[in-house]
Amino acid sequence: MKKYEGFLIDLDGTMYRGTEKIDEAVTFVKTLKERSLPYLFVTNNSTRTKEQVAEKLAGFGVPAEPEHVLTTSMATAQYIKEEKKNAKVYFIGEEGLKQALNEAGFIYEEENPDYVVIGMDREITYEKLAKACLAVRKGAKFISTNPDIALPTERGFLPGNGSLTAVVSVSTTVDPIFIGKPEPIIIEQALKAIGTPKDRTLMIGDNYHTDIKAGLTAGVDTLLVYTGVTTKEHMTDIAESPTYAIDSLSEWPF
Amino acid sequence: MKKYEGFLIDLDGTMYRGTEKIDEAVTFVKTLKERSLPYLFVTNNSTRTKEQVAEKLAGFGVPAEPEHVLTTSMATAQYIKEEKKNAKVYFIGEEGLKQALNEAGFIYEEENPDYVVIGMDREITYEKLAKACLAVRKGAKFISTNPDIALPTERGFLPGNGSLTAVVSVSTTVDPIFIGKPEPIIIEQALKAIGTPKDRTLMIGDNYHTDIKAGLTAGVDTLLVYTGVTTKEHMTDIAESPTYAIDSLSEWPF
Repeated sequence: MKKYEGFLIDLDGTMYRGTEKIDEAVTFVKTLKERSLPYLFVTNNSTRTKEQVAEKLAGFGVPAEPEHVLTTSMATAQYIKEEKKNAKVYFIGEEGLKQALNEAGFIYEEENPDYVVIGMDREITYEKLAKACLAVRKGAKFISTNPDIALPTERGFLPGNGSLTAVVSVSTTVDPIFIGKPEPIIIEQALKAIGTPKDRTLMIGDNYHTDIKAGLTAGVDTLLVYTGVTTKEHMTDIAESPTYAIDSLSEWPF
Repeated sequence: MKKYEGFLIDLDGTMYRGTEKIDEAVTFVKTLKERSLPYLFVTNNSTRTKEQVAEKLAGFGVPAEPEHVLTTSMATAQYIKEEKKNAKVYFIGEEGLKQALNEAGFIYEEENPDYVVIGMDREITYEKLAKACLAVRKGAKFISTNPDIALPTERGFLPGNGSLTAVVSVSTTVDPIFIGKPEPIIIEQALKAIGTPKDRTLMIGDNYHTDIKAGLTAGVDTLLVYTGVTTKEHMTDIAESPTYAIDSLSEWPF
């Protein structure tokens, strides 16, 4: 087995299920810390700040600081910054996206932005969407933090950011660049953030169609863990297998 | 030339452009009235009531009463009523849709509706969309008043109902039944409302891709009038021609 030097780790379904921690995953990350192996939590959740994510993990006993977190909002901000420093950005989104864009030093601009960014926003309004459509039609580059079509909640599946984004893509007939999993951009940003060699970094997640697909497309090794969305039965008719698949992170042979 | 007994007439681009009436169209409808030829204004606008539509037309000097109007909201209500009387309906929409559904006698139901109807709603919220997604996932029949992706306004093209509807169709992966043009359902409802024989009824409009397509699909004769969206240049590469095409309704040979 290859020795990995860096670990990119999904959250929901991998570290916890909703409000319930997954003990084996907590132990796994503690072991990483003890061995001084770098790790980064990589999440499609655009609404929370890195501090909020770290706080939730710490509440489960996971050794997690804000610098261990890469949200899709942070990956989006970094992606734009590499293209254009001091960009004028119009965005729809919650606190996590707002903070990430602010920290990247962008100028908020509604009328003539360089970029339109859409992230999950439970305070969505017609006017917010109207401004996004007008700016995209004027030529602003159209970016969406993540393509998730539905959010699992105790009420059932609610609209995810991919479905809110559809208002603008359908209305303007312009397709966005999606940053989050299963797109590879968030993984490429995660590799830059963690700083370990690509061929020595492992992407770990419970969802074949997001976590593993993103890793496969980005060209990093992948570890599927059967503690969340994807089951063994789902894996009978897939095109490309993850590098590894295990029932629980307690099985990982360090 | 065939003698037509009934006339289905589009509004924006045919009777007026925004707040400016089209004189030849006003004269045309006056002539219809003088000759006692039935006419019905057929509009994809789901937000206005039939009274509001008639009032706007009357303000331009058009002989128009509420009974001369079929909005896509009214067509939607009639379509559902034919399928299921006293249906439980959850809807997103403005006054025009609310009135049409109320007048059809439906029961408003958020949790377990038989139908989910989406019409244009400039007070859209995440919670409204969430309820629609949950109900469609529970099996409610999913209907959208019209597929227009963009609304022309003085600010530019704003999101139309087709793009708002996309939140629910993308999130649930269920495609709606669209009632409005270019779908034929609104024309079928219009034929029932006007009561003239299908082969003696003419659909008149300025937009090949909505008015004329709807007429062609519904199997009624069509008259394209070049006073709005579609120009002669647009007509060089179309699959199926309208029955007639004229520059202005003043050219119509009664």
